[in-house]
Amino acid sequence: MRPIITLITDFGTVDGYVGEMKGVLLAGARDAEIIDITHDIPPQDVERGRLTLARVWRRFPAGTIHVVVVDPGVGSSRNAIAVSSDGHFLVGPDNGVLSPALLSASARAVSLSVSPHASATFHGRDVFAPAAAALARGGALEAIGIEAKDLVIRRTPEPTRRADGAIEGEVIFIDRFGNAVTNLVGVRGGVIEVGTLTIDLRRTYSEVEAGRPLALVGSTGLLEIAVRDGNAAKALGLERGTVVALRPEG
Amino acid sequence: MRPIITLITDFGTVDGYVGEMKGVLLAGARDAEIIDITHDIPPQDVERGRLTLARVWRRFPAGTIHVVVVDPGVGSSRNAIAVSSDGHFLVGPDNGVLSPALLSASARAVSLSVSPHASATFHGRDVFAPAAAALARGGALEAIGIEAKDLVIRRTPEPTRRADGAIEGEVIFIDRFGNAVTNLVGVRGGVIEVGTLTIDLRRTYSEVEAGRPLALVGSTGLLEIAVRDGNAAKALGLERGTVVALRPEG
Amino acid sequence: MRPIITLITDFGTVDGYVGEMKGVLLAGARDAEIIDITHDIPPQDVERGRLTLARVWRRFPAGTIHVVVVDPGVGSSRNAIAVSSDGHFLVGPDNGVLSPALLSASARAVSLSVSPHASATFHGRDVFAPAAAALARGGALEAIGIEAKDLVIRRTPEPTRRADGAIEGEVIFIDRFGNAVTNLVGVRGGVIEVGTLTIDLRRTYSEVEAGRPLALVGSTGLLEIAVRDGNAAKALGLERGTVVALRPEG
Repeated sequence: MRPIITLITDFGTVDGYVGEMKGVLLAGARDAEIIDITHDIPPQDVERGRLTLARVWRRFPAGTIHVVVVDPGVGSSRNAIAVSSDGHFLVGPDNGVLSPALLSASARAVSLSVSPHASATFHGRDVFAPAAAALARGGALEAIGIEAKDLVIRRTPEPTRRADGAIEGEVIFIDRFGNAVTNLVGVRGGVIEVGTLTIDLRRTYSEVEAGRPLALVGSTGLLEIAVRDGNAAKALGLERGTVVALRPEG
Repeated sequence: MRPIITLITDFGTVDGYVGEMKGVLLAGARDAEIIDITHDIPPQDVERGRLTLARVWRRFPAGTIHVVVVDPGVGSSRNAIAVSSDGHFLVGPDNGVLSPALLSASARAVSLSVSPHASATFHGRDVFAPAAAALARGGALEAIGIEAKDLVIRRTPEPTRRADGAIEGEVIFIDRFGNAVTNLVGVRGGVIEVGTLTIDLRRTYSEVEAGRPLALVGSTGLLEIAVRDGNAAKALGLERGTVVALRPEG
Repeated sequence: MRPIITLITDFGTVDGYVGEMKGVLLAGARDAEIIDITHDIPPQDVERGRLTLARVWRRFPAGTIHVVVVDPGVGSSRNAIAVSSDGHFLVGPDNGVLSPALLSASARAVSLSVSPHASATFHGRDVFAPAAAALARGGALEAIGIEAKDLVIRRTPEPTRRADGAIEGEVIFIDRFGNAVTNLVGVRGGVIEVGTLTIDLRRTYSEVEAGRPLALVGSTGLLEIAVRDGNAAKALGLERGTVVALRPEG
């Protein structure tokens, strides 16, 4: 079976940084299948990288190697790590971007050694891609690093319960369509409040008229604020951190 | 032969929606070759998705599976379909985006069943990718759905003939270079009129000076309005729907 | 071994031009592995295409075929060429975009014949992709063209030495992070001057406070001007061509 290597970066593609990484991956694992997840994470937005990884990694077949490079601390003392978790491998900086995989009980992590020949500014090419290629060739985690402890974990903020009984969450990201994805999970009823606006919970976009706002449970189980055939973030002034409250009915 | 699966979506890549689809495709067809056509169709622009599919699908080898997800009606009563046409397979919503393949005499279509576990907002992951993976594993069209009738067909608007003998067409899309692609085909001579502007027909960009407008027959046989080394849409104020007339010479 | 074909273009992806090229490549070389380097070269920016190719091509395994289509002169008398250089193949227009590979002593180039059926505006699909597919099938360079001479070479401008002993270079491109990459190589010490600003040389971004400018030797050995956790080009008003001087210390 050819190995599968996925890529999540904030590099864009035009500068050739991703191209260099792909070259190193194929030079080290000639039969690897490289799958672009995205190179459009906003520059240095570790949180967005983490959320994108959270959404995708478990969908891939067992044995897939996920390389995630959103790395504002490159060249500092932050560790470079490789992780084994629930049958997948992950490679990236120890800045919390790999948290979705680290939170599994099966997770094991090693700290990658950084060659003295590695550049100080591009570990994607000089540290992470070579480690991923070694794993793709069948290498064991222990062969490419030493056990790592005290890893950086980032978590989605938890909703809180207000004195009036409402549950208060927040927007965690705005997607391409302008939908505002929140940290509210398991919502089955109630009324959604965003600022002075009250929004009804629906099952699909098509249950309201074009241009009207709605709330619905998105494809990962998180409550989203949307506008049918429109951009909710622009129309309603939503951004990361905007408070979204869920008030039980009746 | 490994199966080839192409992807056309309006998802962008940063949110991870496409990443999830790729995971589902590879989990279901481990040896599939996934080819990104584009994920930059403007959100919910079914017409643009249709035009991009029209341009590419026949270029691929026989047996290729094309997945097209531009799907503003997801979760509504619109059908999800899979199509066999001239040796290719296509999977997507029944909203006209697959029309280029449906217009072939050989086209057969089935309506995909939607699992009760499918999300109401992301059929790309929960309906279309599993169907494409089933086809990639060699499954027959009949095995993944029941015959579909009365499919939605979208067509490029036809040019009309004016009382003065000119043929009146329109801009159907603006490409990345700012070239305005029209619905005028088979143009071999004459003078092009856009508003009050008269533009000569040329064979290549290099036949005019930098910064000058020209009309030429593009690589799919459609008449285009361009500006050499420039952006015709911006320079001349062209947009989708702008009238472009062809007046016979002499 | 499956052949590897990389793509660098200024086509974007939404119009389907790249999709058409991928179809032609796979129709001609069914087992080829297509690797996207970038399709986001700014339209007709041959220089940027050249710099991206320079960064990536040698990273790939021997035998890789690199297709580079940034081609403002398509349809003019400019030649279409294929090149063999240091074990790699390259295909593209003879406008200097392939210079990084042409400068090797081992480089051999052929001029591709252009079919009378080729469009005048899209040689990526009609000339370069078929040539790359022929090479991927194991074809020899001599089988797809005749020896080419007097090729167009583009070079990064050389720094100059000023009367006061400083070395004067310039910004050659701005990367996605807003880092200004210069043509100054082999910098080990000294003080960097940009306009009236003096910037210290550092080894990594993390050696200065967030928001502060620094100069450092980037991952390809070129001196870069950066702002930690920020965008140097915007913060300091840098653009392609901005003068950057290196003054020896002491």
